[in-house]
Order: sequence, then structure tokens, then C-alpha cells
Amino acid sequence: MGHNHRGRAAAAGVAVTVERAAWLRAAASALEHAAGELVPLAARETRLPELPRLHAELDRTAFQLRLFGHTLTDGEFLCATVDHADPHWEMGARPDLRRMVVPIGPVLVFAAGNFPFALSVAGHDTAAALAAGCPVVVKAHPGHPELSVRTGEILVDALTWAGAPPNIVAVICETEAGVAALRHEEIAAASFTGSVAGGRALFDIAAARPRPIPFYGELGSLNPVLVTPGAVRARGPEIAAGYVSSFTLGAGQFCTKPGLLLLPEGHGLTGTLRAAVAATHGQPMLDDRIAEGYHATLAGLRDDPATEVISAPDAVADTVEPTLLRVTADEFVAAAPQLRTECFGPSSLIVEYTDTTSIHRVLAALEPALTATIHAEDTEYDTIRPLLPTLTRLAGRLVWNGWPTGITLTWAQQHGGPYPATTTTSMGPAAIDRVLRPVAWQEFPDALLPPALRDANPWDLLRRIDGKR
Amino acid sequence: MGHNHRGRAAAAGVAVTVERAAWLRAAASALEHAAGELVPLAARETRLPELPRLHAELDRTAFQLRLFGHTLTDGEFLCATVDHADPHWEMGARPDLRRMVVPIGPVLVFAAGNFPFALSVAGHDTAAALAAGCPVVVKAHPGHPELSVRTGEILVDALTWAGAPPNIVAVICETEAGVAALRHEEIAAASFTGSVAGGRALFDIAAARPRPIPFYGELGSLNPVLVTPGAVRARGPEIAAGYVSSFTLGAGQFCTKPGLLLLPEGHGLTGTLRAAVAATHGQPMLDDRIAEGYHATLAGLRDDPATEVISAPDAVADTVEPTLLRVTADEFVAAAPQLRTECFGPSSLIVEYTDTTSIHRVLAALEPALTATIHAEDTEYDTIRPLLPTLTRLAGRLVWNGWPTGITLTWAQQHGGPYPATTTTSMGPAAIDRVLRPVAWQEFPDALLPPALRDANPWDLLRRIDGKR
Repeated sequence: MGHNHRGRAAAAGVAVTVERAAWLRAAASALEHAAGELVPLAARETRLPELPRLHAELDRTAFQLRLFGHTLTDGEFLCATVDHADPHWEMGARPDLRRMVVPIGPVLVFAAGNFPFALSVAGHDTAAALAAGCPVVVKAHPGHPELSVRTGEILVDALTWAGAPPNIVAVICETEAGVAALRHEEIAAASFTGSVAGGRALFDIAAARPRPIPFYGELGSLNPVLVTPGAVRARGPEIAAGYVSSFTLGAGQFCTKPGLLLLPEGHGLTGTLRAAVAATHGQPMLDDRIAEGYHATLAGLRDDPATEVISAPDAVADTVEPTLLRVTADEFVAAAPQLRTECFGPSSLIVEYTDTTSIHRVLAALEPALTATIHAEDTEYDTIRPLLPTLTRLAGRLVWNGWPTGITLTWAQQHGGPYPATTTTSMGPAAIDRVLRPVAWQEFPDALLPPALRDANPWDLLRRIDGKR
Repeated sequence: MGHNHRGRAAAAGVAVTVERAAWLRAAASALEHAAGELVPLAARETRLPELPRLHAELDRTAFQLRLFGHTLTDGEFLCATVDHADPHWEMGARPDLRRMVVPIGPVLVFAAGNFPFALSVAGHDTAAALAAGCPVVVKAHPGHPELSVRTGEILVDALTWAGAPPNIVAVICETEAGVAALRHEEIAAASFTGSVAGGRALFDIAAARPRPIPFYGELGSLNPVLVTPGAVRARGPEIAAGYVSSFTLGAGQFCTKPGLLLLPEGHGLTGTLRAAVAATHGQPMLDDRIAEGYHATLAGLRDDPATEVISAPDAVADTVEPTLLRVTADEFVAAAPQLRTECFGPSSLIVEYTDTTSIHRVLAALEPALTATIHAEDTEYDTIRPLLPTLTRLAGRLVWNGWPTGITLTWAQQHGGPYPATTTTSMGPAAIDRVLRPVAWQEFPDALLPPALRDANPWDLLRRIDGKR
């Protein structure tokens, strides 16, 4: 691609996607090269273990930047659509009309506390915005301030050397600065990962602006898991072990933690579950504020007259041991508003159902979630099928015979669900769509069109031409 | 497609798209067959002429329903994405993961007053929602209540006979009922076409819900038109005639009315413009409330010390004659907040610029719009190119040497712009995306997947498989 093409693309307000892919690859490599500095810094600020967790998360973050780069070189995300003029068009002669997406404008990213790399300064939402061609302002999470500043320096250095405009990424640190940025008229969209209360407060600010902007919040999610009688009979102990492993992973500080397990009455797994919990090790939580929030929410759940403790630590300590509670389906439905609150930490609630009607009543009492998981046998499809419409309405990802924690990154990934799981968001390559907006060009001269829409298709994109792909 | 496939699709919460296309075609035919009844009813309630306007609008509405049907049979809107399990995936072994979109849920459509067919009960937003598989509640516009009820009856009858579920469309009439529906927890999204004030009030209600929902509002837009000196020299009178014809079309009651014309100082077209305005005929406005709003807004513009009247009617009458005002670029920039208000009716404002800097200052003072239009000669590309980034930020459709009124419906159409032109919306086939949400299925048995995601691809869809299209 010659210099002239680049110049014209910039002039049309559409940055050159192939170059942006190179920026993202440069950022990924810079993070990997800085692992020796960044991982110990992250461990000190977040109390998360360096191995395997923080090294794996840094690798994931680099992969994520490159995956968005791949999305760019593919170019389908542009939705390039060309309709030639047609004097015989059914609703009357039509002009030449061409459409594609352009960057929405500067994006404000509120970094998450629980993923100091993957959902922070150089994380998912930053990668998506840079891929789309949007400048980014990151509001650092207070849980890892030094890491945030240092990651920002490394990111800006890498992007600048790769040819990105200076100041395409900025990091700000104070809460007040974040709120001021959210109100700033130049900010065109914002994203957030955190609690329902914090996310809703920011959503309300975004919606109340003189010019409202989209706010992509990932808030709270119970991530229910349904286990059928057949699955209990076939592999009850294995399911119990997987469940305890999943809800205690990372001290339960994952948005996809299974917070609710639906088991058939008389499942006979209580002893197995108690033993599995007892075999876990206490883990430190990210910071004191999060630990305090966890203990307060958990106390509310434990004090609810409907719940019974299966396993819980004797006392509050520096490292937190898991808590497992139990309730019957009828009790859960009666008490749902209190019991369906996400408890961010290593606790989960078992709900014991009697029959399919009982399952339906529990699902109807739940709020939407990021994920819904089913453990069932191949002989039980006819039992499961009637539940699928409800589960599809309830969650953004349905998992079969697995666990919701451990989110792979692929083209088909989707991380989001109806409110309060998220406001209107998705994670994975499709998240680039959140920070793009469509524009149509009518009867434009070829030389003034963005390259992606010119007759010669100089970028060799997948395009829809006169309705045909 | 056999009965079993249909049964499974419904069970997965994904209505069968081919059948929905048939519903839309049935609705289109029913409208066409009822033209003899509906068009006179619309004319009586809206004061719009039967010919060519209302008959053409009904035809457009039927075409629109069929175009959404075509979008369905094509199936690309489903974004069906299949990633097979891969033990060697770069970020670690991945499970089988498949994604597509599903209906967001019941949609509330606030009908527009100025398009009693195309943006009303059986109009664009209803067609998009039905295409997506969402039930629709239409809040009728008070300007054409009888037409709304009758159109609703015809639509429901046609849909039901075509096999759609009963009550897939409901029409409600009172403002209070509309607000109650907007607050109802089962409503998953809302759309609106109307004024900034009305749209913002409803947007605020949608955002304040316990579970906020997306609100797709089309509010107000000035639709600036820039005419270069070269274009004035080459075809000034033709441009003047086109402009007057465009801003007076339908008594100026179009969201894409060119409300602002940027002309070079010394253009010499004042006499031509005045004569063109004088040659138009007065037209009735849709209703008395809209006429009163027009006269009040226009009085504010006329009374502004910066504006000068080029042409205006002597007195307020039952039929409204056009008003044309003029201001210099410097005066406009100084007075912008008052003068950039949309005036819904047959008026427009000429802004006279001195040079490119002056153009840039006017564009910077404008709010975003649905459209931005350029009249220029082929020798002036180098003058226009530096303006394109600003114009792309400012509008959702850029028009070259044409007029923004008269919106064709094609795959590339895009009707929307940054706030206040719209909240977050588009019109045209891509609008179906507004009422869909993505869901991923992880490690699901083939028989429990939606047909669109099964290995055999029984619907023969365009899909992305392991990253490849």
C-alpha cells in the first residue's frame, strides 16, 4: 500500500487498519518483554500469585492484543457494503450508496481490579478501542496503581515507536478524574468492569450527560449451574470436585464464578463437597476493601434464615477459605432477592430442587447472568430441551458439561449477558463493534471515498455488493 | 425444512428465520391490499396528500417489510461463528465454542407523526423487530390514531394467518400507557422518532429503569449542506432550486430536511432563492400542535439579531409558506446555540462563509446530524478532502451533489448520526442488529444447538469457521 493510499485513508477519517494491527502486535511484544518487571509488580499490588496466574494472564493479554490485530487484517468488521446506483430499483431509482463503520471517538476505559493485565491498562477494552481506531483514556484501578502507570508507559512507548499518534493512550488515576472524564464532551463511549453499585453509578452519569454516550458495563453475575439427576448418578463426585475447584479459583474473584449450583434433592454429595472444600487452601483477596465487601455480603447470606452452612471457615483470617451454603428450591424462590446477590469471593450456594417444575421456578427467580452451565447425560436431551429458551434468555454463554471460569479467546467468544450481568456489552473479537459507528456515502467520487469502499477494493476486503456476499 | 428442525429451533429460543421472512411478506401484501382504505384515512388524519405522497409511502413501507425479509433469508445477520475445539490453540487448549445472535426480547416502538406508514405501526422499527424475532408493542402517534389502530388490525391479521404467534404485535394509544410500557420489566428495548425534548424524556426513563434498556431515539438534525465557490459558478441556480425544493418538501417535516446551507460570500443567488421560494405553494402541517411548535421555533430564529429574512410569508395561515433566513459565518458562530436548533417545518438558514477557515469554524459550531451534504466540482477535491474527517464525525450519511431528503432503502443505507441526531441507531437492514444480542454455546451437543450453529449447517448460512469466512 503506497503512501498515497495511506494519506487518503487518513483524510477520510478512517485510519489504516493494517497499520493499527501492527501497533497492536508491537504492544503485545512490549508487554511480553516487560514481563520480568510487570509480573512482580502486579503480584505485590494484587496479592495474586506470579505463577501460574500472573504470567498466564500477561500471556493472555498479549494474545488478546494480537487477536484484535487479526480481526483488523481480516477486515470483515468494517461491514463494507456497496450498492451501485440502480434506475430500476424496486422502490424507485436509487443513488450509489456505500456504508462502512468508523471509530466512534475517544473511549474511556475503567480498568478492573481482578485482572491487572487482561482487563486493565493494556487489556481487553483498550485493545478493542485501539483496534477500532479510537484513542483511549484508561482510568486505572486503585488496586494496582504503580502497575497501571508502568503498563501505560510501556504501552505508549510501544505504540509510538510502531507509528501510532502520540497520546493515543492516556492513563489517569483518581476517581474524580475518572468521573470528570466520563462527563467530558469529547469522550464518545465508556467501558467498565466491576460491581453493580459502582457500574450503575457510572452508567447513570453517562446517561445523564447533555450528550449521552454508550456505557459498556460488566457488573454482577451469579452464573448458575444446573446438574441433572443423571449427571449426579454418572459422575457426581467428579462434578462436585470441578465445582469446588471452579468457585474457589482465584479466591472466587472471577466474574464467571459459579455462584449457584442446582442439585437434585437427595444428591448424596454433601460429604464429598465438604471434603473438597476442606482440601482447598486459603488465599489472600485482592485488597482489604474487596475482602471487607466479601465478608459483609457473605454474612448477609449466612444470616439468612433459609440458608444452611455446608462448609465455612472458623474465623476471618488474612487468607480466605471457601464457604459453601445450601438452601431448598422453595426457600430460594421465597428468598430470591437477598440470595441472588453476587458475592465476590470464594463462596457459592447450592439450591436443591425436587423436579423440573422446581428447576423452572428457580430459573425464573434468577437475574440474568454472564453464563449458565448444564451438567447432563446424553440420555437427558428431552429433559434439557424445554429449559433452553429460559437459559438462553438468562445468559450470554451456555456451557455444557464444563465450568464457566476459564474463558478462552476465539472468534466465537461472547462475554456478556442481559442486565445486570452487563449493560450492553460483549467480550471477544466482536467487542470491536461497540466502539464503531456506521456512516454511509451517497454518490461520492471514488477518489474521496475511504479505500475500503472504492470500486477497486484496494484492501481486498470481504464486501457486500448490491446485496450479494 | 421438516417439522423436527422447526421444533428444535423453537426450543433453542431462535425462531425460524425463513418463516419470519414469510410473515413479513404477508404483512407487506396485506398493507398493499388495504391501500384503498388506509391511504384516505391517513390523508384525513395527517393532512398529507394521497398522491403522490401517501401512496408512495405505503409502497415504501411494504418494500421495507420485504427487504427485512430478504435480510432474514440471507442469514448473515445471525453472525454465526463456529470455533472447533483445539488442543493446540495459542493461548491454551480451547473448547468447542459457537456464537450467534438471538432476539433481545419484546420491543416498544414509539411511532412517528410525520411518516404515518413508514415510521408508524407497520413501519421500519416494527419490521426490524419482527425480522429479529422480537414481539412488538407499538405506541401509536396521537396524530393518526384511527389509522394506527386499523393498521395494527390489518398487520396482526396478516401475521397470524401467516403463522406468527398471536399477539406478536400490540398497539397502545395513550401517552401514559407508553410510559408504563417503557417502564415494564418485560420490555427489552425501545425505539422512538420525534423531537429532541420528547426523545430525551423517554431516553431518561429507559436509562433510569432498575434494569436499563437500550433506547434507539432519532431526535433532531440540522443536516448542513456545503456549497463550494466552484459549484456556485458552475450551477448556482440549479443548486438554489434543488435546495428550496428539498427544504420545503412535505412542508419541511422530514428529519433529513436541509436546515442549513453554507454558501460562499457574494454568491449572487439571493434573488434566485427568493424567486424559488415564492414559486412554492403553501402546505398544511401535520397537525396544529406541530404547526404551533414550528411557528414558535421560527419566531425565535427570526427574532435573533444575527438573522436576516430573505423570504418569509406575510402572516401565519392555515397552509404554511416557506421561510428562508440568512446569517454570516461569524454571526452564526457567535450565536450558534440558538441558531443550531432544528426547526421542524419549511424553513432553512443560509450561512455565508468567507474562506475555508470560516467553513471549519461553522462546522465546529454544529451539533451532529443525520446527514451532511457537499456540492462541489470535480476540480475541488483538494479543497474538500481536508473537510471530510470533520464531516464524517458530524454525520451518519454524507451526500455528494445531491440532497439529503428522499432516503432510499438498500443494504448500504444508514440513517443515524451522533447525538442529538440519534441516540445509537441506524435505519436500513443493519437496524436489525439493534434488537439482537449475542449468545455463545460451549461444548454443546449438536442436537441441542440452534440449527444455524450445527455441524451440518442445515440452513446453508454464511458462517465464520475457525476464524475463516
